[in-house]
Amino acid sequence: MSENNGKQFINGQRVAANAPTIESINATDYQPTGYLFSQATLDEVDQAAQAAYQAFLKYQHTTQQQRADFLDEIAIQIENLGSKLQEVAAQETGLPLVRLQGETGRVTGQLRLFAELLRRGDFYGARIDTALPERKPLPRVDLRQYKIGVGPVAVFGASNFPLAFSTAGGDTVAALAAGCSVVFKAHSGHMATAELVAQAIEKAILNSGIPSGTFNMIFGSRVGANLVEHPLIQAAGFTGSLEGGMALFNLAQNRPQPIPFFAEMSSVNPVIVMPEALNARGEKVAQDTVASFNMGCGQFCTKPGLIIGIKSPAFDQFVTALIDTTRTAVPQIMLNQGTLKSYQQGIDALLNEQGFKCIASGQAPELISQAQPHLFQADQSVLLSGNPKLQHEVFGPMSIVIAVDDEATLLNGLEKLAGQLTATIIADESDLPQAKELLNLLTRKAGRVLFNGFPTGVEVSDAMVHGGPFPATSDSRGTSVGTGAIERFLRPVCYQNTSQVLLPDVLKDGNPLHITRLVNGVLTQN
Amino acid sequence: MSENNGKQFINGQRVAANAPTIESINATDYQPTGYLFSQATLDEVDQAAQAAYQAFLKYQHTTQQQRADFLDEIAIQIENLGSKLQEVAAQETGLPLVRLQGETGRVTGQLRLFAELLRRGDFYGARIDTALPERKPLPRVDLRQYKIGVGPVAVFGASNFPLAFSTAGGDTVAALAAGCSVVFKAHSGHMATAELVAQAIEKAILNSGIPSGTFNMIFGSRVGANLVEHPLIQAAGFTGSLEGGMALFNLAQNRPQPIPFFAEMSSVNPVIVMPEALNARGEKVAQDTVASFNMGCGQFCTKPGLIIGIKSPAFDQFVTALIDTTRTAVPQIMLNQGTLKSYQQGIDALLNEQGFKCIASGQAPELISQAQPHLFQADQSVLLSGNPKLQHEVFGPMSIVIAVDDEATLLNGLEKLAGQLTATIIADESDLPQAKELLNLLTRKAGRVLFNGFPTGVEVSDAMVHGGPFPATSDSRGTSVGTGAIERFLRPVCYQNTSQVLLPDVLKDGNPLHITRLVNGVLTQN
Repeated sequence: MSENNGKQFINGQRVAANAPTIESINATDYQPTGYLFSQATLDEVDQAAQAAYQAFLKYQHTTQQQRADFLDEIAIQIENLGSKLQEVAAQETGLPLVRLQGETGRVTGQLRLFAELLRRGDFYGARIDTALPERKPLPRVDLRQYKIGVGPVAVFGASNFPLAFSTAGGDTVAALAAGCSVVFKAHSGHMATAELVAQAIEKAILNSGIPSGTFNMIFGSRVGANLVEHPLIQAAGFTGSLEGGMALFNLAQNRPQPIPFFAEMSSVNPVIVMPEALNARGEKVAQDTVASFNMGCGQFCTKPGLIIGIKSPAFDQFVTALIDTTRTAVPQIMLNQGTLKSYQQGIDALLNEQGFKCIASGQAPELISQAQPHLFQADQSVLLSGNPKLQHEVFGPMSIVIAVDDEATLLNGLEKLAGQLTATIIADESDLPQAKELLNLLTRKAGRVLFNGFPTGVEVSDAMVHGGPFPATSDSRGTSVGTGAIERFLRPVCYQNTSQVLLPDVLKDGNPLHITRLVNGVLTQN
Repeated sequence: MSENNGKQFINGQRVAANAPTIESINATDYQPTGYLFSQATLDEVDQAAQAAYQAFLKYQHTTQQQRADFLDEIAIQIENLGSKLQEVAAQETGLPLVRLQGETGRVTGQLRLFAELLRRGDFYGARIDTALPERKPLPRVDLRQYKIGVGPVAVFGASNFPLAFSTAGGDTVAALAAGCSVVFKAHSGHMATAELVAQAIEKAILNSGIPSGTFNMIFGSRVGANLVEHPLIQAAGFTGSLEGGMALFNLAQNRPQPIPFFAEMSSVNPVIVMPEALNARGEKVAQDTVASFNMGCGQFCTKPGLIIGIKSPAFDQFVTALIDTTRTAVPQIMLNQGTLKSYQQGIDALLNEQGFKCIASGQAPELISQAQPHLFQADQSVLLSGNPKLQHEVFGPMSIVIAVDDEATLLNGLEKLAGQLTATIIADESDLPQAKELLNLLTRKAGRVLFNGFPTGVEVSDAMVHGGPFPATSDSRGTSVGTGAIERFLRPVCYQNTSQVLLPDVLKDGNPLHITRLVNGVLTQN
């Protein structure tokens, strides 16, 4: 790290009024890693927001090509960090190096996908209604609409994806692609990782000739709230707990000027196993299910926390296989001490709750930082009564299996679930005739419905939705993964009877950007 | 009116536990029109929301063609109401028959435009990323996204457009097009008008075979709050005052499950007159400006309430022409007694505020229900200090003119303005080189920027934006006029590895609906 280690990133400078006293902690042994950070002052939060606003005034006028090149350059600079990035991230989060290598690829892939999106140009949503001077009873004026960035965006790093949902993660990329500047609040769980990535972004800013305050980063506790309340911040993206998300959401809505606050929060991601699939391959499904809820130590927003099927001998065998596989599951290091404590509290709460019982546990932890996998079984009454304990996300390597009497009970029970990021149906061809009503129900409940896979893989692509009805997110109309994520930070503006000289290229006659536009009700590249 | 006059419209039935005691009032003489309405009970609000929810479960699965036909049928049924509709609306609102005839055309045109939008199919935002089983290091699954309705929507009628922003107005049509059911809260200022239009919608529901609870309407005070707090309501559209809008917005955000609440509220719609335009045609601009702020008795959300130019002899002449024209302006009937009272309070507040003076008044009212037009002049200090009185919308036939020292002062002053629905630049060709920075500034402030026209004409088309930064609306990402209005009530859902048998037609291989879709990053109709 440089001599500036631990200072805020503001307007291309490193700034810190406070001494560096916040310690980066090793996730494995809870000892300091040696990296220290300064708590941002209120004045520094203000400086960061001001810098973002001043940069926005220029950055919003960059061309789509300039922004695409900038995102590509960030990807290169992140690659240039080399293995140091994964090593530091592994220290701070306890995640395995191979996972962090994959996550780095996801970050750079995501940056390049958004660059493609920018070059494609349909994110502008360009619409042109040309003048109809002869129309009766009234002539029509010339109207041209496109989408522009809402302004400076506050982004909150998630603990569980120190790269892909953090400093240069999905929300940051979506905001930068939209033409918005960013103030990023570094997560306390991986500040040194954030520092490295921020340095890469700063280099990309310099290399690309982008305004220096386009990206800013602050460290510290409570500064997130200050940031959300800052009048120059115009939107925010968050990934984290329901409690944390709603606290910030409420601040955002209760400002003198409310702002869009997209929080991705809580989901138990039900998996429904259909009878014929269980008959055909129950044991394999059980193994894959256990692998999915243990993947990344169960620290995925899309971890399948609820497994439901209809009572049958095949389902009993499936549960037996879940138990057997869970018992072989190895303990893994959790992201930090707080996360492990929350996990253990969540497990204890279920152990003490009527209708739930722990039916299998994985191997015992060998390190103080490891979590033991657990499998619970719950009565169907817990589902049918809408018991909030069932719907409370326990972040970590556990899941709950429920057998229901019949299909009607299954549908009744699922109807009681709150909004979800994902819902999964494990089905064979012969199950499909029974799956239609189930699919309709789950479509109302979730942002993504998947068949014969597990929700823990979240592809970054145009068609992905990582969102869903509350409490999965604070606004079901958004996604935080995939190119659709840009929509959260765009607003439409309409120019009426505006001279060609003054119009942006995207709306000019002759379509100089060669993008698809809706012209007089017809999608065209002309 | 039928014998059921005054009861709630719930699930295709007329229901009222309370006696009809709320009077419809004639806007001209403040006497009862004779139509009486029943205050909805809390139980009736619940019945309406339940009916909307049950209908949504079916209505959401109607095809785009079925919904398009339904909207067309509503237009026909509204036309079938004949001149009775405008006569009743004229009684209740004091608006001239010819205006209400035009507004009826706007309503039916809007319904048919949304039917076109549905048939075009791009509102689905269909995106397909096909599986890449050979991709390294990980295969890609098949992902298909489209947009679906968020659920039952609460819609609030606006006082100033008893047809176009009311029962079958922009918000209702956008929600119905999105596949959402509606509970409409009738505005107390035109309940008999609302009753007629609701009857037309009910006929269209019957004729089109649409589920009976797809549209519901309730009467009464405070029921709007009950509606927004009802757990089955999933979004809301509102047009009205800042106070009313924010009260409901706060309820919507503080529910256990917050919901999107799109409120179109407050805007002073600045008009900037450029030097060369004034030199060339100052007197004509003055006449048109006065006509615009008096149109519809100044009761448009887009009324130009602020006129700004740079000091010059031509600007002085322009102000003189504004004064002369204002003095000839005739008084018109306001929508209701409350609106007139608010207008007079707004005028009184300006008369008592330092920095403002009334420089012209129109002809004196002859009826108790008429408003007198007024023109104010304000010091530039009022603009530069961001005086909230200047930014407070005074709903009615008035405007404020300000002369500023120079272009820099103009830009500084405009920077102090809050968000606007519209901003207007009156410019000649030779003004355009100076207009670029102004345009950039106004683009940040407004949802629509227009040249050489007046904002009071709001075309209903694909490219229109009737929205803008707070407090113009509660969310700058939406529009309540034009086909873009549908976006507010749609959310994306993604199907992963889903069988062709179960996929909706919009996402099937072979594109059976022949719509434009984004397939593997390419917009195509294949």
